[in-house]
Amino acid sequence: MRTLYFRQPLTYDGSQLSSLWAFRHLGVQGDSIVAFRGPCRVEREALVDLADYLAASIIYSPDMLHFLVEHFETDLEKGVLRQRLLVVITKELLEARGMRLRRRGDDLFVDNGKLSVSVATATPVSLMIHLGLNLRTEGVPVQAAGLLELGWKESEVEALAGSIMEAYAGETKGVYLARCKVRGVP
Amino acid sequence: MRTLYFRQPLTYDGSQLSSLWAFRHLGVQGDSIVAFRGPCRVEREALVDLADYLAASIIYSPDMLHFLVEHFETDLEKGVLRQRLLVVITKELLEARGMRLRRRGDDLFVDNGKLSVSVATATPVSLMIHLGLNLRTEGVPVQAAGLLELGWKESEVEALAGSIMEAYAGETKGVYLARCKVRGVP
Amino acid sequence: MRTLYFRQPLTYDGSQLSSLWAFRHLGVQGDSIVAFRGPCRVEREALVDLADYLAASIIYSPDMLHFLVEHFETDLEKGVLRQRLLVVITKELLEARGMRLRRRGDDLFVDNGKLSVSVATATPVSLMIHLGLNLRTEGVPVQAAGLLELGWKESEVEALAGSIMEAYAGETKGVYLARCKVRGVP
Amino acid sequence: MRTLYFRQPLTYDGSQLSSLWAFRHLGVQGDSIVAFRGPCRVEREALVDLADYLAASIIYSPDMLHFLVEHFETDLEKGVLRQRLLVVITKELLEARGMRLRRRGDDLFVDNGKLSVSVATATPVSLMIHLGLNLRTEGVPVQAAGLLELGWKESEVEALAGSIMEAYAGETKGVYLARCKVRGVP
Amino acid sequence: MRTLYFRQPLTYDGSQLSSLWAFRHLGVQGDSIVAFRGPCRVEREALVDLADYLAASIIYSPDMLHFLVEHFETDLEKGVLRQRLLVVITKELLEARGMRLRRRGDDLFVDNGKLSVSVATATPVSLMIHLGLNLRTEGVPVQAAGLLELGWKESEVEALAGSIMEAYAGETKGVYLARCKVRGVP
Amino acid sequence: MRTLYFRQPLTYDGSQLSSLWAFRHLGVQGDSIVAFRGPCRVEREALVDLADYLAASIIYSPDMLHFLVEHFETDLEKGVLRQRLLVVITKELLEARGMRLRRRGDDLFVDNGKLSVSVATATPVSLMIHLGLNLRTEGVPVQAAGLLELGWKESEVEALAGSIMEAYAGETKGVYLARCKVRGVP
Repeated sequence: MRTLYFRQPLTYDGSQLSSLWAFRHLGVQGDSIVAFRGPCRVEREALVDLADYLAASIIYSPDMLHFLVEHFETDLEKGVLRQRLLVVITKELLEARGMRLRRRGDDLFVDNGKLSVSVATATPVSLMIHLGLNLRTEGVPVQAAGLLELGWKESEVEALAGSIMEAYAGETKGVYLARCKVRGVP
Repeated sequence: MRTLYFRQPLTYDGSQLSSLWAFRHLGVQGDSIVAFRGPCRVEREALVDLADYLAASIIYSPDMLHFLVEHFETDLEKGVLRQRLLVVITKELLEARGMRLRRRGDDLFVDNGKLSVSVATATPVSLMIHLGLNLRTEGVPVQAAGLLELGWKESEVEALAGSIMEAYAGETKGVYLARCKVRGVP
Repeated sequence: MRTLYFRQPLTYDGSQLSSLWAFRHLGVQGDSIVAFRGPCRVEREALVDLADYLAASIIYSPDMLHFLVEHFETDLEKGVLRQRLLVVITKELLEARGMRLRRRGDDLFVDNGKLSVSVATATPVSLMIHLGLNLRTEGVPVQAAGLLELGWKESEVEALAGSIMEAYAGETKGVYLARCKVRGVP
Repeated sequence: MRTLYFRQPLTYDGSQLSSLWAFRHLGVQGDSIVAFRGPCRVEREALVDLADYLAASIIYSPDMLHFLVEHFETDLEKGVLRQRLLVVITKELLEARGMRLRRRGDDLFVDNGKLSVSVATATPVSLMIHLGLNLRTEGVPVQAAGLLELGWKESEVEALAGSIMEAYAGETKGVYLARCKVRGVP
Repeated sequence: MRTLYFRQPLTYDGSQLSSLWAFRHLGVQGDSIVAFRGPCRVEREALVDLADYLAASIIYSPDMLHFLVEHFETDLEKGVLRQRLLVVITKELLEARGMRLRRRGDDLFVDNGKLSVSVATATPVSLMIHLGLNLRTEGVPVQAAGLLELGWKESEVEALAGSIMEAYAGETKGVYLARCKVRGVP
Repeated sequence: MRTLYFRQPLTYDGSQLSSLWAFRHLGVQGDSIVAFRGPCRVEREALVDLADYLAASIIYSPDMLHFLVEHFETDLEKGVLRQRLLVVITKELLEARGMRLRRRGDDLFVDNGKLSVSVATATPVSLMIHLGLNLRTEGVPVQAAGLLELGWKESEVEALAGSIMEAYAGETKGVYLARCKVRGVP
């Protein structure tokens, strides 16, 4: 699976959660995880998580590290499983820097501050995952935590993104290889 | 998904990794995670992981906490994804007690000691996962770590098993519900 | 699978046949069968059955008992099989009251009067089934039969809906359990 | 799907429930329903329904009308759905002759007598269904009902088999065509 | 699978690549391959191949023999495999007339002239393939080859279409039957 | 997908058609196509194609170029589609050397001599394809053609194997990428 850090700032507004976004905009074809940085502002009509929609939430952050994953397969529950692994991998990498986090489903918390937003859904030709990590938290409508406010430096953001993408691509390959080394049983 | 702790000691020899084991032996029908305690001794011919087989490994532990999971579905890669989540959940619950662990794929380590063995495979009608956690380590053929040697007490083993089973069943339900709240995107 | 009888009258116009309708409007998440009562009026453009569309049919009934089923899976043919079972279950429950019905595919008839309309289709994230049973028949554009005109009482409608929903949920669970008790064969 | 009535008497002992039986023995290739007549005697070790196995049942009938169905697909739950439809179709055809039957899952009863045995399972390349209808009941280990004892004549058995096979093949085709006439919805 | 040659000229503009086109317009239900003749003009916004879209291509031909295939299944990669076979079959039939062609993926060339355009994609309920063969080439925006300019006669076009449709339907059936004659292996 | 030419001569007797053969014997993990050279002798009991079995065929050749393909997926019909493409690619590469071949399903002929044998089937964890090309034909039980008797040289066999493996791996990747560049349609 391909990985790419896109260096231009970009506002995540939900429109990126559509099939082949990485191919259209970044020339990345096939299963991929791409990352970029920028605000997050998803209006109610653009929400794909109807639990959020029914709660009349909007999703906002002034500055996030965004990951956009696309797998060209069609089992949405499998997409949610992959999403959980992406969240877990992110948690493990942040913990390796000494942070302490708590995971609840696909949400990460630092103390009671919400660090992340995430959703997984289906397009007509693929599955997509968005994961956003707060870098800063001014104006976030819930109690939040931001990496830059927790001791991370501006200069480390891209490397963190790279680590997460590499670890996710590695885990994805590892999962595939694990499936290719076992015989069936009765 | 159903959960059950089976209190009689039982040696895991690989024969449990066959379809409907929990139904045949414990009367548990449908998706399930069951746990039991006992030695682990899988002879070479019973190995389903051919990487182990080719390395001429045997799998042995004098005392393990065993989990046996069955999902009545057929995508083996999805089974591996579920297995990874089971391993992650176990890690998170042990960390909540103050332990520090490292995960590499489906293996858990405490310092350099291997805490776990795990495999996921397919039966003709389901997917199955075995996860074994060392309680003690005498005679384990690799550098190992055992929960009872790391401060856990005999009296806590069943409760730990219960926590892991509950958390896995909860995560599985959460994954399903996450799949049932999103609309598709273009 | 969850069941719910929604007591407010509601006109079925085809817009209900969209993903997560029960979650959006009734807070019911996951596989479900919900029922409500009201007229049925599906304009040509809203028809999803193109055989009806090509015949320039409209679907109209002044008063129907409606069932809306959602399964979060993706094999449309399997959805049609489930739809047939829903129709069969309905037939069996009506026959238990002494009625005589004839089934042709997914249609139920009393003598030559059409008692039901039904369709099964796919959303981007699920399969959906609509089944409507005529309660009254004034203005129905084909020869029709209505339960209230065949001896059922107003006061029995909700209980009938409940029986059908319970039987369908039970059959669905039975089908799943039947799949979880057989070993494979060569 | 092909249909065939095999006129030579044959004991059903469970060995017929294996992939490509109709191709090997009758030259019938592809999805099929075949019928034959003969005793039924399935020893405990040959049982594929583990609920029967655990109950230490054996399955015996001195004279049955057997149906053996094979679909070259792999979703076992879908196979169970098809099995239920086969049972329903059988019930409907018997009722058209004036009999009254009761269905519970995949079992048919006349009063309290069990008329049928049935199982659906997976082979490595297909799904298979067996349905047996008692013709006579001497020696059946449960309270049973047999068609020849309920007024059917020897001379009618083959025609009944033909009707059931035709109806099942027709329903199967109808289900497929129903899947090929609907557009998707949001 | 059904085959039909539609004799009225029709411009292929991409709108035909939508589910159930053959059912809506030609009354052909179920898996099908239909053919017709006419210009090809797909504007940029109607392109479904995003590689073409990104290259700002338009697709134009003054006169093509068009094939439109629909399979009621959902694995898009399988649809691409079927598309490749359709292209191969076309090549084999043209070669049987003495032409020499070269295939690159889903493109056919005569010398350096592009003979064909093709795409496979998913609808909410099916997979669809378009294959167009240039009959004439005036105005085609790339170096092209056209059958009428290579020695084929007007009077042969319909027979060629018929041969390709028959061969594709036969190959499709052969693939299915090949799947219905092998036992599984360990 | 990985490719490997195994230089030691090996008799193909059907036992190679089992899951993970390339991993067990050659250390090749994941989707793969491997080639080797040697006799072919498949006894009747080892036949997986039951049409051959029923015809009481044995499969024999004194000297063949063998290809063994494994894809870690489970749709057997898709495996047959991939097999057909492997046969087509082989044909195209041989034709590029000036040979003239005829394909009928998965068989290749030179004049009336059968050049190839092939089968595709399912294992519990994967799909497998065998394709054997006659190099010599003494003792082959049908009218056969052998590459070494048709002008190919001993020294070219390995390069031919390499070309076929490369082309198949390339086509497989191309099919995947084709699936990753199209948007869905209504």
